[in-house]
Amino acid sequence: MVLVAEPMPWLDSAAFTLLVPAGCVHEPADCGGLTSFTCEMALRGAGPRDSRRFIEDLDNLGVEWSDSVSTARTGFSGATVAGNLPTALEIFADVVQRPHLPEDQLEAARLVMFQELRAVEDEPAQKVMIEAQRHYYPDPWGRPSQGNEEAIEAIGIEPIRRHFGLHYRPNGAILGVAGRLDWPELKDTVERLLGGWDSRQAPGVVDGVAGKKVEHLEQETKQTHIAVAYDTVPYRDPDYFQAWGAVGVLGSGMSSRLFTEVRERRGLCYHVDASYHSLLDRAGVFCYAGTSAERAQETLDVMLAVLSDLGRGIEAAELDRLKARIKSGLIMQQESSTARSSMIASDWYHLGRVRTLDEVSRIVDGLTPESINAYLARRPPRDYTIVTLGPRPLEVNIGVR
Amino acid sequence: MVLVAEPMPWLDSAAFTLLVPAGCVHEPADCGGLTSFTCEMALRGAGPRDSRRFIEDLDNLGVEWSDSVSTARTGFSGATVAGNLPTALEIFADVVQRPHLPEDQLEAARLVMFQELRAVEDEPAQKVMIEAQRHYYPDPWGRPSQGNEEAIEAIGIEPIRRHFGLHYRPNGAILGVAGRLDWPELKDTVERLLGGWDSRQAPGVVDGVAGKKVEHLEQETKQTHIAVAYDTVPYRDPDYFQAWGAVGVLGSGMSSRLFTEVRERRGLCYHVDASYHSLLDRAGVFCYAGTSAERAQETLDVMLAVLSDLGRGIEAAELDRLKARIKSGLIMQQESSTARSSMIASDWYHLGRVRTLDEVSRIVDGLTPESINAYLARRPPRDYTIVTLGPRPLEVNIGVR
Repeated sequence: MVLVAEPMPWLDSAAFTLLVPAGCVHEPADCGGLTSFTCEMALRGAGPRDSRRFIEDLDNLGVEWSDSVSTARTGFSGATVAGNLPTALEIFADVVQRPHLPEDQLEAARLVMFQELRAVEDEPAQKVMIEAQRHYYPDPWGRPSQGNEEAIEAIGIEPIRRHFGLHYRPNGAILGVAGRLDWPELKDTVERLLGGWDSRQAPGVVDGVAGKKVEHLEQETKQTHIAVAYDTVPYRDPDYFQAWGAVGVLGSGMSSRLFTEVRERRGLCYHVDASYHSLLDRAGVFCYAGTSAERAQETLDVMLAVLSDLGRGIEAAELDRLKARIKSGLIMQQESSTARSSMIASDWYHLGRVRTLDEVSRIVDGLTPESINAYLARRPPRDYTIVTLGPRPLEVNIGVR
Repeated sequence: MVLVAEPMPWLDSAAFTLLVPAGCVHEPADCGGLTSFTCEMALRGAGPRDSRRFIEDLDNLGVEWSDSVSTARTGFSGATVAGNLPTALEIFADVVQRPHLPEDQLEAARLVMFQELRAVEDEPAQKVMIEAQRHYYPDPWGRPSQGNEEAIEAIGIEPIRRHFGLHYRPNGAILGVAGRLDWPELKDTVERLLGGWDSRQAPGVVDGVAGKKVEHLEQETKQTHIAVAYDTVPYRDPDYFQAWGAVGVLGSGMSSRLFTEVRERRGLCYHVDASYHSLLDRAGVFCYAGTSAERAQETLDVMLAVLSDLGRGIEAAELDRLKARIKSGLIMQQESSTARSSMIASDWYHLGRVRTLDEVSRIVDGLTPESINAYLARRPPRDYTIVTLGPRPLEVNIGVR
């Protein structure tokens, strides 16, 4: 396990992000949802604490915490007053090393898993993005963490124990800590809590194929929900900041092209944006818009036209605005232990090192319209994966406004 | 207008929250959505800036901003590096005093309003809470900001100009600023920007009646969405912190009673919680759970049993956990200029003064199980407003587990 830390002595809080290499990509093909199920069970008692005491002790320490499951990792993160951090870490060190995985809570946990799955069915805006990831990335890299009903119905305690045994391991795990902290003391604490964690080999992942490039999911929703994804470079690529700048101009914030063209000028939707998503060695740009059925075709047409335009380059004024927003965001990130603990853990996962905010700031300063346009000339948006959800399918009219 | 400020010299950012007394309660009965429509139009150019330059200038200043419309107020808030605050305030001073309300953008704005309305239709978890507020509070105090299709279809530029003219006014407006700031300089800036804003009288609000106590909205959703509301004291009431403590034990966090009984023990749902909501002189507790149709009756039964139990009092250990969480939350609030600017503006609205975090901390220390139980004995949860959304209606079995 790697410990990365960033002291922020001007704060009174401290935050941690603990990533273990247990991701949905490791689920057997008929066990969709096993990683989330394992995580749900790992949180139902660990070490000296049963399920109830686990939750109560964290509350008594004032820890605001959450868990998350993605294709490559299971993450546990939390923040509290700095003095309570060591005990909070002790509790989560038990979760990743000594969870009870109590069989008598298996059915309650299974029901929670079912309900989560159904909650997504009632959120079409979220569902279309989950499906876009599933279609865009080659299996198993786009798997939804929620799994599917049949698999969750069938999973017993043994697959959960096996999944835990194989994938909750220190080789590949990362602990990021940021906030008010004393480095030698933190190092000792973490050594004591996690130093004896046994490494083990995990089976590799075999890449499958991606889903259909164009898919319509018929559902009697009030809006038609549109997702468009296309290829970009991963976070660790030298071109990453160029790609990031291009996505920012495309769809981040109210002066972005998508917001301007789709919402402000044409009133086609309430929500529209584009965001960057990266795995270790592949990445995608994911655009979303939700609109009424009768405006859906026009919305998709405009989105594709905006994407096609982006390939022709961005302007200096657009980049200046983006830089101002990013620089302001960096300063505010410096005020949040939670944001930094998550960022440094993620940096280590992708880069094997941490970028300081100063370094990011210098890189952003160095971006020019020319550098981004050179990138866009090499890798224009194209070859789209398009998933729509709503009452009627749409036509894909590339290059038509 | 009142300016309230809290210097946080350990930060590099500054944040503002500008509240104007334009709320949905002021909408003529056939103009549901007029306040949001007016806000959407006010953001399409003001003072020397047209719609485009307004957005671009805010981006160039690195301002992360948002607007919000509630029954009593329209709010504009933002955060940026401290040095850019005066210009950000200048831009929003134009929005509230000199918006163009450009007729040539009326149709685009109307379409955005329609799309927002439809987006809510596709989010049943949000919709059931909107309907719970509408049913719980006597009209017009529970009106949804999104309005309704017929009204939005019919609203022209004149009602918008009239609504702006009547309700965007300094008497009743509050500006909260927190972060790195210089008080004399801030006072001068605000005097210059907003000192000439003309007061005017606004018509009063006539209270109508509340909606049905039990309502089912039939919709073919995957989950049944359940909202239960009941009466509590408003924020300015001397009993507020007792009420807040009781709601915390009931439904805030993972060791709360609702989470424990509904989700953890029985696996009935993925999301369940209770939250406190206050207007100036009335308030409600709103509980939510989303569950499958076949478990919905049991979920509602358990929720009502938990509420009924709460009336019999809380335990010392529950309060200790809640206090620990609140104290930790207060320390983290001290690290966020955005949280503080919003809090001090809200304090002024409700109390006519600002509570410092030290004062809140002392009040929380003073809470005891006895003080909260005395409150609960006087005002136990009862007389519920229950709104459900899903394929089938439920029975209301008070006192049955």
